[in-house]
Amino acid sequence: MGDVPSAARNAPLVLLSGGGGGARLAAGLSQAPAERPLLVVTNTGDDFEHCGLSICPDTDSVLYAVSKTIDPQRGWGRAEESWSVFEALKNLGGPDWFQLGDKDLALHLSRSAMLAAGEDVAGVTTELGDRLGVPPHVTVVPATASPIRTHVISDQGKMAFQEYFVAHRCTPVLRHVVYEGIDSASPAERLSKALDDVGTAGTDVVLGPSNPFLSIAPILDIPDMQGLLRHAARRVVAVSPIIGGQALKGPTGKIMSELGLEVSAAGWTHWMSEHYPGLVDVWVWDETDQLAAGDLRAEGVDIRTTSTVMSDPARAAAFGDWLLRICEVDH
Amino acid sequence: MGDVPSAARNAPLVLLSGGGGGARLAAGLSQAPAERPLLVVTNTGDDFEHCGLSICPDTDSVLYAVSKTIDPQRGWGRAEESWSVFEALKNLGGPDWFQLGDKDLALHLSRSAMLAAGEDVAGVTTELGDRLGVPPHVTVVPATASPIRTHVISDQGKMAFQEYFVAHRCTPVLRHVVYEGIDSASPAERLSKALDDVGTAGTDVVLGPSNPFLSIAPILDIPDMQGLLRHAARRVVAVSPIIGGQALKGPTGKIMSELGLEVSAAGWTHWMSEHYPGLVDVWVWDETDQLAAGDLRAEGVDIRTTSTVMSDPARAAAFGDWLLRICEVDH
Repeated sequence: MGDVPSAARNAPLVLLSGGGGGARLAAGLSQAPAERPLLVVTNTGDDFEHCGLSICPDTDSVLYAVSKTIDPQRGWGRAEESWSVFEALKNLGGPDWFQLGDKDLALHLSRSAMLAAGEDVAGVTTELGDRLGVPPHVTVVPATASPIRTHVISDQGKMAFQEYFVAHRCTPVLRHVVYEGIDSASPAERLSKALDDVGTAGTDVVLGPSNPFLSIAPILDIPDMQGLLRHAARRVVAVSPIIGGQALKGPTGKIMSELGLEVSAAGWTHWMSEHYPGLVDVWVWDETDQLAAGDLRAEGVDIRTTSTVMSDPARAAAFGDWLLRICEVDH
Repeated sequence: MGDVPSAARNAPLVLLSGGGGGARLAAGLSQAPAERPLLVVTNTGDDFEHCGLSICPDTDSVLYAVSKTIDPQRGWGRAEESWSVFEALKNLGGPDWFQLGDKDLALHLSRSAMLAAGEDVAGVTTELGDRLGVPPHVTVVPATASPIRTHVISDQGKMAFQEYFVAHRCTPVLRHVVYEGIDSASPAERLSKALDDVGTAGTDVVLGPSNPFLSIAPILDIPDMQGLLRHAARRVVAVSPIIGGQALKGPTGKIMSELGLEVSAAGWTHWMSEHYPGLVDVWVWDETDQLAAGDLRAEGVDIRTTSTVMSDPARAAAFGDWLLRICEVDH
């Protein structure tokens, strides 16, 4: 272990996360033996209103993952879920394109009630986390309190993220992504405050293995976000969502290909470096992609490899532990 | 059977209804053998927003009653209901003062989705009725499309209807009732149109045995409502909510007493006559109150008595049948 100032070791690791791999990593980091404080910053571009309810899919997935209430097979929604309301909704001819489990619905109802009562997004998320049993060393914060709505421009026209992702199952060919509202958004106060608090010792920032266009960009593109993170970060570590030429789950590979990018860890690294120059210090690739790392390493790109596949909680915790150790050496 | 113009016999009977006795009567009238078209005008003063959802308790009770999906024991909500979401909501510390059954929730979600999509209140209600299986000769129409919110002024201050009715279980001493928004409301277009369509032959209007202050008044006090009903009505028949000196269910008796009224069918008749002079032609009292009718009858008040207790669907249908026959004679 290197020479780490103790303030930094206790400073919260900051993880930027979407709903899938990011949520798994959040769980892994939260369950690593070190119990280092963890601040998970969740993508809000997927948030939407459905049947009157405020639904925050990525934030919910992270809350469920770190409270161990997530369905481990599906990777989203609650474990031991039931579907009474959804069945009744279908019987009534109601909207059935977005699946609403009973326990999941209770969360949407609780959130909607608190928001209607005037509570702020960050406070509501913390309260829901407490109720779900998020461990005390973990804080989940939506990236911004301002509404951002991701829309995709596709060969079938412009559509809201959920329409593309759920109703159309990502089949339209994606040409461009826009994050409506992002220009007037600012980083969540709770995040700014936490990053202020780490002081000069700094902390570590991890970009989770989430979809770069649909989950990471709508966080990083919030005005002042990159500066805020870069200022507080001793080191920014980015985890590749591409393993062996494909995404484990979700449309990242398909989208990269539609955008004319090479579907590989290198293609992802190139895109990230171009779009966020100087932001990332360390690139984490899966060990499967080890051989392809040579060229970039020769150019001085700091690529580390390990097994990044989080197929069960033990593997996620092992990967989380590995990442925490990466963050604690070499300063 | 008297000399009834056939247009009038086919014209829809109009029933003004709250959620309890009114809904039972709606079911009784809808199930009477004559299958006379029935237009149920529901109180909207109880409507409210809960956890982001649009909830219309009286309209829902009537929809459930006439589609035979109502829980016959409780007299509200769906039969064969389950409570998965409500249990999960309580586990999350969410608001538990208003009970939300799973099937019931599906209706609130469907309504909220349709309203969010821009559909109008009357159209949404008809569509929900169709999906629930409301018989084709029955139409349910919320009294107005404009938001009305009933508030009670009590010894514990001013509170919204649901707070008084559900959260406080009607314990505060009621001094006054206000129907916020009613001054700028107007009768539902579908109701005006239906009453226009009956033409000069006219039709029959029944004021259900619902709470006069909390269910009937927020319909009748809508500007132009009384004129519209009176103009179209051959006869307005009002059914007493007070039987043998008390309300079968709900706070009508308690409220009458708090307002200084005699808790009796006569007390109710006096209050209605004072507040809505010239509106009611026929007063229907329960046979239990037969003896007390003498004084008013001597003054020329047209009081009819029968068994008005609708303790099961057969009794409700029998009472409905009796009312339909009342409407078809003596013109």
